[in-house]
Amino acid sequence: MKVGVVDTTFARVNMGKLVVDEIQENFPDIIVVRRTVPGIKDLPVECKTLLGECDICVACGMPGAADKDRVCAHEASTGLIHAQLMEGKHIIEVFVHEDEAGDGRGLKDIVEDRCRKHARNAVYMLRKPEWLVKNAGTGMRQGGENAGSIQ
Amino acid sequence: MKVGVVDTTFARVNMGKLVVDEIQENFPDIIVVRRTVPGIKDLPVECKTLLGECDICVACGMPGAADKDRVCAHEASTGLIHAQLMEGKHIIEVFVHEDEAGDGRGLKDIVEDRCRKHARNAVYMLRKPEWLVKNAGTGMRQGGENAGSIQ
Amino acid sequence: MKVGVVDTTFARVNMGKLVVDEIQENFPDIIVVRRTVPGIKDLPVECKTLLGECDICVACGMPGAADKDRVCAHEASTGLIHAQLMEGKHIIEVFVHEDEAGDGRGLKDIVEDRCRKHARNAVYMLRKPEWLVKNAGTGMRQGGENAGSIQ
Amino acid sequence: MKVGVVDTTFARVNMGKLVVDEIQENFPDIIVVRRTVPGIKDLPVECKTLLGECDICVACGMPGAADKDRVCAHEASTGLIHAQLMEGKHIIEVFVHEDEAGDGRGLKDIVEDRCRKHARNAVYMLRKPEWLVKNAGTGMRQGGENAGSIQ
Amino acid sequence: MKVGVVDTTFARVNMGKLVVDEIQENFPDIIVVRRTVPGIKDLPVECKTLLGECDICVACGMPGAADKDRVCAHEASTGLIHAQLMEGKHIIEVFVHEDEAGDGRGLKDIVEDRCRKHARNAVYMLRKPEWLVKNAGTGMRQGGENAGSIQ
Repeated sequence: MKVGVVDTTFARVNMGKLVVDEIQENFPDIIVVRRTVPGIKDLPVECKTLLGECDICVACGMPGAADKDRVCAHEASTGLIHAQLMEGKHIIEVFVHEDEAGDGRGLKDIVEDRCRKHARNAVYMLRKPEWLVKNAGTGMRQGGENAGSIQ
Repeated sequence: MKVGVVDTTFARVNMGKLVVDEIQENFPDIIVVRRTVPGIKDLPVECKTLLGECDICVACGMPGAADKDRVCAHEASTGLIHAQLMEGKHIIEVFVHEDEAGDGRGLKDIVEDRCRKHARNAVYMLRKPEWLVKNAGTGMRQGGENAGSIQ
Repeated sequence: MKVGVVDTTFARVNMGKLVVDEIQENFPDIIVVRRTVPGIKDLPVECKTLLGECDICVACGMPGAADKDRVCAHEASTGLIHAQLMEGKHIIEVFVHEDEAGDGRGLKDIVEDRCRKHARNAVYMLRKPEWLVKNAGTGMRQGGENAGSIQ
Repeated sequence: MKVGVVDTTFARVNMGKLVVDEIQENFPDIIVVRRTVPGIKDLPVECKTLLGECDICVACGMPGAADKDRVCAHEASTGLIHAQLMEGKHIIEVFVHEDEAGDGRGLKDIVEDRCRKHARNAVYMLRKPEWLVKNAGTGMRQGGENAGSIQ
Repeated sequence: MKVGVVDTTFARVNMGKLVVDEIQENFPDIIVVRRTVPGIKDLPVECKTLLGECDICVACGMPGAADKDRVCAHEASTGLIHAQLMEGKHIIEVFVHEDEAGDGRGLKDIVEDRCRKHARNAVYMLRKPEWLVKNAGTGMRQGGENAGSIQ
């Protein structure tokens, strides 16, 4: 099994490294291919290319807080979904918006939690799809506490 | 006849189970294939893949109430329509926004009603298309009371 | 000549019937194929499929007045344009937003006028394209009075 | 060389005629193919079809001033870009929003200026691409005075 | 190695020249192909065509400050991502919004910095991908000072 990991030089945390570490620490037999592009709009075609040799990709990015940045994130997300449909394989999007936390410490915590949990999601989607079915509707969250099921 | 049902671990209600139950209780001869993905943006490619073996898919998700969540839902919906056009088959989207009801009880009622009615819609589209034509313009709603025709 | 007509069970007026009637009353030699789907997001793939056997399609829907409904209409319209580009044939979109009139009577008038005029547009596009060129820039409207040319 | 010109019956000025006139007055050897469709959302597939026989297309439309009209224009523009990518040829979009001027006279001036300048752009793109490179970054505008380069 | 550079006559700074200069001054062995189109919506198909012969493209534009201009930029960006997915190659987007600075001098500084840095990014993506990985998550910015990593 081969996982592609792509992140950006724009992000203010080394997101790709977190994803790679999580996979290598827990699933040492999985081959990881790492790439970095300038910004989130460069992720779709890079991931599409990687899917030629990988079974799944993880696409990491940190869009800024301005309106323009939100539009960029929307364009990147749309492209990532398009790339998946063209290749017939998943790309797990790991975006953290710079305004999700009040300070740098809080932001780094969100980034680390989201990167590590989605790294595992990527592996489980290929190796343990039944784990996902078992957790359907349980309000899982990446970047913080789970929301849980509605009682 | 084979129906694909995909839901998410992000949702706070087990939507896929409701769809599967509705089909199995009422149409026991139909084969159901169940999958779960992390979030709604992962639905399009999963449904596209399933349409390779299924006649129709039901895609379930519960987007959050924040602006960012609405954008995610828009991206997922766009991808689901794209996937349908690529495969030439229907994907019935069953999305419930977390702010559609004031409390958990109300939300669960909406989810159950929408999931079950759309499960039937999926079956009728393939088996009884004339039922849909008969109900054209009657203001049918999933998730609550029908709006009815304008008098 | 064969025209596909698709409408929804969500709409509160039987729009498909109005389109079919207009065509059959005025162009009795034209073959009409009628389909109904649950909502407007189901229109694109249904129309795309129909275009396999039809020369043109008319896609009818009544999006609600809420913000979420506008987004749905946007997604459906985007999908309808995509379907046309894939098939190389026209789909005439006949959408009436529920808030276009103050009461039911007004809304029904808009629906009837728009459905009937666009039914004719669909036929003219195939049979009398010169009629459209002759009316270029004349401010034609469907659903009410023409706006006319700017003097 | 063959240029396709498509406009709408919705527009309140005969935009297609302005484009055709500009080309025929200045480049009498160019063959022009003229089509008219009901509204701007019908432009993409019409242009795509014309690009089968033409070297370039000019797509004219006059979206209204309401929010819904802006969304229609966005959908049409997205479709026009998609059509270009599918055919590998240019479609010059000539849209004039009904609220770009305070009165009819002002609007007609904008329409005429934009149609004529873009008609020339379309020809230059095929015959004199070096003219465009020479004018790169000069703040050219269609519909009014050029903005000029920043000093 | 061959780089395509496309800019517009709409922009108020000769962006394409800045990109070409940066490449030719620093990487004299690289072949540069320069094109200019009227506006940013014309960039996607021009870049897609150039990618037939080039290894990568740089697409430059200066969207205006009005809401309509932002929508144009969104449409152009979406098309640029689509073009990349179709060709399987990168297009580095270099857009500067006219309202990013208070005066012309400030705007020209942003334009020059962004054009030159992204010209290098384009080259590094092909020749030194490990340089990008080394700078992952370092908060690099084009058009001004780097934001840096979060401490």
